[in-house]
Amino acid sequence: MAGSQFGNIFRLTSYGESHGVGIGGVIEGIPAGFELDIDEIQDELNRRRPGQSHITTSRDEADKVEILSGLIDGKTTGTPLGFIVKNKDQHSSDYDHLKEAYRPSHADKTYEDKYGIRDHRGGGRSSARETIARVVAGAIAKQFLLDLGVRFSTYVDQVGTIKLEDNSFFLKEAIEANNVRCPDEHISGRMEKLIEEVRNEGDTIGGAIRCVIMHTPAGIGEPVFDKLHAELVKAFEYGSGFNAVEMKGSKHNDLFDEDGTTHTNHSGGIQGGISNGMPIYFRVGFKPVATIMKDQESIDKNGDKIVITGKGRHDPCVVPRAVPIVEAMAAMVIFDMYLRSKVSKW
Amino acid sequence: MAGSQFGNIFRLTSYGESHGVGIGGVIEGIPAGFELDIDEIQDELNRRRPGQSHITTSRDEADKVEILSGLIDGKTTGTPLGFIVKNKDQHSSDYDHLKEAYRPSHADKTYEDKYGIRDHRGGGRSSARETIARVVAGAIAKQFLLDLGVRFSTYVDQVGTIKLEDNSFFLKEAIEANNVRCPDEHISGRMEKLIEEVRNEGDTIGGAIRCVIMHTPAGIGEPVFDKLHAELVKAFEYGSGFNAVEMKGSKHNDLFDEDGTTHTNHSGGIQGGISNGMPIYFRVGFKPVATIMKDQESIDKNGDKIVITGKGRHDPCVVPRAVPIVEAMAAMVIFDMYLRSKVSKW
Amino acid sequence: MAGSQFGNIFRLTSYGESHGVGIGGVIEGIPAGFELDIDEIQDELNRRRPGQSHITTSRDEADKVEILSGLIDGKTTGTPLGFIVKNKDQHSSDYDHLKEAYRPSHADKTYEDKYGIRDHRGGGRSSARETIARVVAGAIAKQFLLDLGVRFSTYVDQVGTIKLEDNSFFLKEAIEANNVRCPDEHISGRMEKLIEEVRNEGDTIGGAIRCVIMHTPAGIGEPVFDKLHAELVKAFEYGSGFNAVEMKGSKHNDLFDEDGTTHTNHSGGIQGGISNGMPIYFRVGFKPVATIMKDQESIDKNGDKIVITGKGRHDPCVVPRAVPIVEAMAAMVIFDMYLRSKVSKW
Amino acid sequence: MAGSQFGNIFRLTSYGESHGVGIGGVIEGIPAGFELDIDEIQDELNRRRPGQSHITTSRDEADKVEILSGLIDGKTTGTPLGFIVKNKDQHSSDYDHLKEAYRPSHADKTYEDKYGIRDHRGGGRSSARETIARVVAGAIAKQFLLDLGVRFSTYVDQVGTIKLEDNSFFLKEAIEANNVRCPDEHISGRMEKLIEEVRNEGDTIGGAIRCVIMHTPAGIGEPVFDKLHAELVKAFEYGSGFNAVEMKGSKHNDLFDEDGTTHTNHSGGIQGGISNGMPIYFRVGFKPVATIMKDQESIDKNGDKIVITGKGRHDPCVVPRAVPIVEAMAAMVIFDMYLRSKVSKW
Repeated sequence: MAGSQFGNIFRLTSYGESHGVGIGGVIEGIPAGFELDIDEIQDELNRRRPGQSHITTSRDEADKVEILSGLIDGKTTGTPLGFIVKNKDQHSSDYDHLKEAYRPSHADKTYEDKYGIRDHRGGGRSSARETIARVVAGAIAKQFLLDLGVRFSTYVDQVGTIKLEDNSFFLKEAIEANNVRCPDEHISGRMEKLIEEVRNEGDTIGGAIRCVIMHTPAGIGEPVFDKLHAELVKAFEYGSGFNAVEMKGSKHNDLFDEDGTTHTNHSGGIQGGISNGMPIYFRVGFKPVATIMKDQESIDKNGDKIVITGKGRHDPCVVPRAVPIVEAMAAMVIFDMYLRSKVSKW
Repeated sequence: MAGSQFGNIFRLTSYGESHGVGIGGVIEGIPAGFELDIDEIQDELNRRRPGQSHITTSRDEADKVEILSGLIDGKTTGTPLGFIVKNKDQHSSDYDHLKEAYRPSHADKTYEDKYGIRDHRGGGRSSARETIARVVAGAIAKQFLLDLGVRFSTYVDQVGTIKLEDNSFFLKEAIEANNVRCPDEHISGRMEKLIEEVRNEGDTIGGAIRCVIMHTPAGIGEPVFDKLHAELVKAFEYGSGFNAVEMKGSKHNDLFDEDGTTHTNHSGGIQGGISNGMPIYFRVGFKPVATIMKDQESIDKNGDKIVITGKGRHDPCVVPRAVPIVEAMAAMVIFDMYLRSKVSKW
Repeated sequence: MAGSQFGNIFRLTSYGESHGVGIGGVIEGIPAGFELDIDEIQDELNRRRPGQSHITTSRDEADKVEILSGLIDGKTTGTPLGFIVKNKDQHSSDYDHLKEAYRPSHADKTYEDKYGIRDHRGGGRSSARETIARVVAGAIAKQFLLDLGVRFSTYVDQVGTIKLEDNSFFLKEAIEANNVRCPDEHISGRMEKLIEEVRNEGDTIGGAIRCVIMHTPAGIGEPVFDKLHAELVKAFEYGSGFNAVEMKGSKHNDLFDEDGTTHTNHSGGIQGGISNGMPIYFRVGFKPVATIMKDQESIDKNGDKIVITGKGRHDPCVVPRAVPIVEAMAAMVIFDMYLRSKVSKW
Repeated sequence: MAGSQFGNIFRLTSYGESHGVGIGGVIEGIPAGFELDIDEIQDELNRRRPGQSHITTSRDEADKVEILSGLIDGKTTGTPLGFIVKNKDQHSSDYDHLKEAYRPSHADKTYEDKYGIRDHRGGGRSSARETIARVVAGAIAKQFLLDLGVRFSTYVDQVGTIKLEDNSFFLKEAIEANNVRCPDEHISGRMEKLIEEVRNEGDTIGGAIRCVIMHTPAGIGEPVFDKLHAELVKAFEYGSGFNAVEMKGSKHNDLFDEDGTTHTNHSGGIQGGISNGMPIYFRVGFKPVATIMKDQESIDKNGDKIVITGKGRHDPCVVPRAVPIVEAMAAMVIFDMYLRSKVSKW
């Protein structure tokens, strides 16, 4: 964790650790007078929740959102919306052996380097549970965006070396039809099998998620899509991405039609940092989860060699559960940009 | 262009268009009492400058920095440092034919969508000249970081399909030894040849830059490395990057030595968003420049079909000149994080 | 309510309405490794609490703070500290008659002008209960400042026309010895009598608070002391305040002694926006509470004349309870400035 | 100087010292497509300029604004507007004797306490010349506000003990009819005489300014009016101000008429931090200028006693020239709040 704030006008400030009271936040800049659907927010949390299928961690976290302010009679009042998702089903004692130990490729040592102290239980603030706050804020942003006609399609397009070579806008039904959240039945089956194999080895595997956004109004903001959870994300590309490196300008340029749309969309819907009305799409690469169920050599606080035995309940592959997180982040950015764009002209 | 601010404590606010009076900015948060080397700042601008070799654009922009405030007797006073780099050698009339036209894959149309008005001369605010302000701020940040022992190695590692398969820390002499700023003599020769070929076709080509940073103190900030110039950057990865997607956790995890260093460095020097003292490295992918010297179909303001003929003087490949920009951005982020880290413990 | 954020490095983001779930917030930028005294925070809330004496409102609000994150084993971890003070003893039905009515000199009409909707129960977000979040954050800031040797003396120095003509640093015991929190026994007695009289008339009365801060280190920040609760504060002065208007420079200037202290302290400890090590002092004027127990003419949503009858339980004079709020705000500002000053020199 | 930023959406970042190259800034958030009147900006600078009458300092500073970006064909483009007002007619050698000396009630010592270094020439960054940047930004904000129908009346209402007991909205012609910028011919004559007397004594005198703003739309923002130049402002009050302290609620409350206006306006046009459409008015108290032409005892860097002899050319009373500054600050705040209010409802 580092920046705990996200956004400008539509702005989330989050707090909370994995094994503390809960994960929560304050959302400022929600326009007043909008009827918020709390069930929709809960649905997004359920998609992020551990324990939802046999290929995710077996922790069963209810992750129920409580809204603490900012609503009257179900409508937004324009004032800050506070919320909390209380922690449950914590096995803090699973982490007792880590009080003095530094796990490889976790934030244990860097937090102590920076703060001189850390909450060792479940990763503390660096836990992926911090993304709960983003899912809540994103679910709210998405309700406003849906009202504007914006539509999202977010899905797993790679697990290990198994890749979906199709970057279409898939319907939610197809994405949610399987545990991996990959909309191709055949490929998702292979992905699921790989995840199971990896888990049986006590290991983990990386993956990637694609997000396609339709009907963003042209002329809004700078979708920087930064600040994805730093613990897991290693790479980001939008539009043509790293493929652009090998292309010539004459092929990469998106030629206009008379109606202002473009033949190709290598720009990924963004030109000069501003939306052009074409589909926005980007892709995020996730590293394999650092917690594995195999013994690993490591060191403790004193720099002495120790052996870490994998404990706790963790995901063998994070991308199926990260789909709603990526979508939430995208929704937050686009809605913030939309609000900012409303004061750009006189 | 969108956000014109960058950083928190060490913060740049920039302004200026390609064909206006100049590009400038205000830098806040520079610690007081430091002897600033203005020649060093100028050297970085010279590395970014057009017209420096036969494979870059033939525009000859002196790009001389003028410091307007914040210094006394050559030392920083802790107050805002204003600066300007005046524009010269502008051929604004080269752009007259673009007043009504929208060039493909430029920000012409999106700026009009957002603002209803635009400065059509040389790309206006969306011009890559805006990066001048970042180079100045980065050059200042780098002087403080050098004082702390931090060292940078930034170089071109790919042009089209020609790639340097070596991510070492190369010395500046090797990088600056050729026009491409790729530290391998043989590969840089092939890259240069490709750029010349592409230019002779009136075309452009993409590329990628790698940045390796040594001796960053452990325990600082969240190097998000966001906000690279949105016009050209399409992709970003740090540490193992997109390769992590295909790896298992047991291979990806960086095991500790007794001294707190790690055997491998897939984390890229950053764990949980905080530096761990290992080399930080990342890679940025650039699309081919959109302005080509070939005729292209496009549309004008009224949506009528037109043909755009390439005019003006532009780079066939942007990466050789983008090396100091990438390094400047990295320096700004790390120095800002360093300053923020100084208040993280009691 | 308006800005829900306060501070830069040490930063509070607050939320909550008078009759919702509670008042809470997130505090970022708390240095790690500090043993926080939760009882001290509770003590400050108790000083702000309604129902603490017969001259305050008879609402009995327990106002118990719950810390939700940011601590381990009682020590700060450097991560955001979330907290909530749940609302209790709400008589929301007391406000049913106000759903359509606009009370004079309240924020009822302006909130509807701005947001088109409002939480009419107990003032909603514009309620003075919002200050609870500031008291919590200020109590935390004060613990760090005490550790640095900074000392606060905050007290009522005027109620109606009864004024304490002494701006010394009084001890907390003297301030807390009576219900008014005016450290002069005789004057506080007269103030208390006036408040009782005013209450018996169903009316309210204004007042003023003075804050004196000793041992602030020289050379820190810009104590702007802005953003006091906009609903009640009408005036602010520091150092010589409005008296300076009538003074000549030769009299107003604070001459130095050899040790860098000054003979007089018309500057109020602040010169050029930076502390000089002398006592900082300022004064805040509060308007009389708008809710009175008398009938008042007003209008409803349709612009029709109505008569408002005072209901609910309110303070006849707000200053005794506002003492800890003013002190909390001062502590927040000074601690934030202190943290910012730590990166001002190289 | 401390915060060099002002505003949120409409945001000024300023730089520059009294005897450096100039005073300038960057203004972000100016809506696109507005025809800016540069002469109007210059007129406001002329009103602030020294040397404009025999009762102000005899320094003749042309203070000509140069716009560096953000305009095309005289219209705003929505991109940052950079500007500079170059310094002229500097007598830096007038300040040589101050290199080692600390003047009483200036920021000399506090700047050294904070930064360990300072620009001693003409006050450096703490000079009142810094307000030039605010006048430019305020003049731009005012042009937009005039377009919305908002009108300002800002004038001197007190010099020493001579006070204008009338807080009406006076026309600019009446305000500008005399050197003091007090709209009452008789009182301004007495003020002018007092200022002359004080100057002949080599002394200075305090003063106060009132600002009345008509036709602000109801329902916008939180006019905090903070951050007035910290060097000179000692006190601030809006609406009934410190007089409210002595009033009862039954008298202070502003009763509504059927049209939503109020009989009285003790609220000063602001309720709960939000405009109610009634005139906004506030008052600012200025201390006497610290630089006097009399000998004063002081200390140098080593803490040794010295005698400071007044040199340089300074105002005996700052308020006549501060009128456009106060008005500029008010315009900046109100325009920023106006822009923010445009995204408050769905």
